[in-house]
Amino acid sequence: MNAKELVQKIIKEHEEIKDVYFVACGGSLVDLYPGFYFIQTESETMHGAWYTSKEFVIAPPKHLGKNSLVFICSHGGNTKETVEAAHLGKNRGAAVITMTHNPDSACNDDSMIPVVYDWADTVKEKDKPQGIVLRVLNEIMKVQESNYKLYDGIADGIEKIDGIVRAAVNKVKNRTWVFAEKYADESFLYIMGSGASYSQAYGFSICSLQEMQWMDCCYLHSGEYFHGPFEVTDEDHLYILLMSKGPNRVMDERALTFLKKYAKKYEVIDAEELGIGAIDDSCVEYFNPILFYAMSVAYRTGLQDKRRHPLDMRRYMGVVEY
Amino acid sequence: MNAKELVQKIIKEHEEIKDVYFVACGGSLVDLYPGFYFIQTESETMHGAWYTSKEFVIAPPKHLGKNSLVFICSHGGNTKETVEAAHLGKNRGAAVITMTHNPDSACNDDSMIPVVYDWADTVKEKDKPQGIVLRVLNEIMKVQESNYKLYDGIADGIEKIDGIVRAAVNKVKNRTWVFAEKYADESFLYIMGSGASYSQAYGFSICSLQEMQWMDCCYLHSGEYFHGPFEVTDEDHLYILLMSKGPNRVMDERALTFLKKYAKKYEVIDAEELGIGAIDDSCVEYFNPILFYAMSVAYRTGLQDKRRHPLDMRRYMGVVEY
Repeated sequence: MNAKELVQKIIKEHEEIKDVYFVACGGSLVDLYPGFYFIQTESETMHGAWYTSKEFVIAPPKHLGKNSLVFICSHGGNTKETVEAAHLGKNRGAAVITMTHNPDSACNDDSMIPVVYDWADTVKEKDKPQGIVLRVLNEIMKVQESNYKLYDGIADGIEKIDGIVRAAVNKVKNRTWVFAEKYADESFLYIMGSGASYSQAYGFSICSLQEMQWMDCCYLHSGEYFHGPFEVTDEDHLYILLMSKGPNRVMDERALTFLKKYAKKYEVIDAEELGIGAIDDSCVEYFNPILFYAMSVAYRTGLQDKRRHPLDMRRYMGVVEY
Repeated sequence: MNAKELVQKIIKEHEEIKDVYFVACGGSLVDLYPGFYFIQTESETMHGAWYTSKEFVIAPPKHLGKNSLVFICSHGGNTKETVEAAHLGKNRGAAVITMTHNPDSACNDDSMIPVVYDWADTVKEKDKPQGIVLRVLNEIMKVQESNYKLYDGIADGIEKIDGIVRAAVNKVKNRTWVFAEKYADESFLYIMGSGASYSQAYGFSICSLQEMQWMDCCYLHSGEYFHGPFEVTDEDHLYILLMSKGPNRVMDERALTFLKKYAKKYEVIDAEELGIGAIDDSCVEYFNPILFYAMSVAYRTGLQDKRRHPLDMRRYMGVVEY
């Protein structure tokens, strides 16, 4: 995908983008959150909103129209409510980018703006959903906002992130084994993150553990932790803390300080220690989630091997009617 | 609080409201979600955003300014990050409504628009945070949007909701005892909801159970359930399902159908069966959360009595430094 050309085409047809909607389900919805967080934090001309597909369809925003851009993502490309959401966006006159891994799916529809991505290990982050979204948004911001300062930093980060992820995956391999050895039989755990990476606490929970390991867990926002959830903390509870680099790190650090004092079982996945600092401070927060996603894959693989629970085993999804 | 006068004053000073920010922590943040969902769904002139206070402070939106309205809520009125968020809003020129139960707190600050609410059992819903927010938004919509159709329905709902809640609390009393009798020792449960009431799945989890009962649980969006989390479902897992009335009900019904087939332990709290249907269909979805909040109080009280774990017992909050 050539992000610059794609954005030129969108701007030519839609003049100005005022609303950006991020619409998908489950793991694909997770991938869209950093883009949403980026628009919500950085944009002077656009508003962002993040929806699970069915909710977008049953309660569509009044602003949805010609000056909207809708990011749609469905790995398999045929998720019913996501396809409905794409058509809703199109019928309202919005520009609709449909990302899918499946070229033979409903999402690869030339009446929209389909982007078919590859998902092999060798594929660069810039060509996977999180990277695609970030590149498109970076170009729109450049076109629409004269005050926009992050263009070069984001472009540079997109070049650097693959090397960072690769090194981090190597670095944590042994840690994931030790984690699985210690905690494979844990009945329950909490996963915390903040900022753009709250999405990764969510995805780690609902995809990597609940879906792929049938393990019970709960995602928490590190900032919200102190307003209720921390009351369960004790030496028997297990936590995974995703520590971002960026302005939101203060929330993760506060959670860590508390865990050090009152908990005993906690795993820290620290983006800073894992090398994310090679990316410019001005925009590093939008890259943490890419690294954390790779870490969730590493940890779930460690759990799979120890628990002998194949990551691809399903009892309902794609198996029964629902 | 006279919502009409308050809105007249805001419009006079700020001309037009374009952005409405809902900013608080924990249980207070829960109370602000239905207002956010209302703006996101119904408004043609405004955008809504919902933030935990610290995230609002560290990553404030660029749109925050003179044409913004910020709803702030802090029950005790001194939550540090919430007070910071209020000042940030004020310094950016926004209208800032600070809701608090504590007249002697930092939130009762006449340089903003303080609304001190009572919290006794006899206080009507219209004078508690969810009702205050809904009334203010109803007036703003009336002033700003000529197409707005829900004014009378919302006003009528605000009159009716107290009677509905009272009847429902009586109706479920025995059910909450039976629920506690059966599940008091359960190690873990999932709580599901959707639409405006996703907030109540969140609040039921983080406030009523994690904070007040030190019980482990996880909140889920009923629509997202099918995109990962349902893989853990079996006859041993416990679920509470908040079934809304309104367009989002289809998501809750789909979850119920699945639970009936594959689970055995689930408690349905059905707003329709509990009388929410007395409120007009056009806006009933914004009242479900008020009813569900009362239900979460009823269920946690049942659990408190059976588990002999006082709802007000804390080991960290207000007890230690953090």
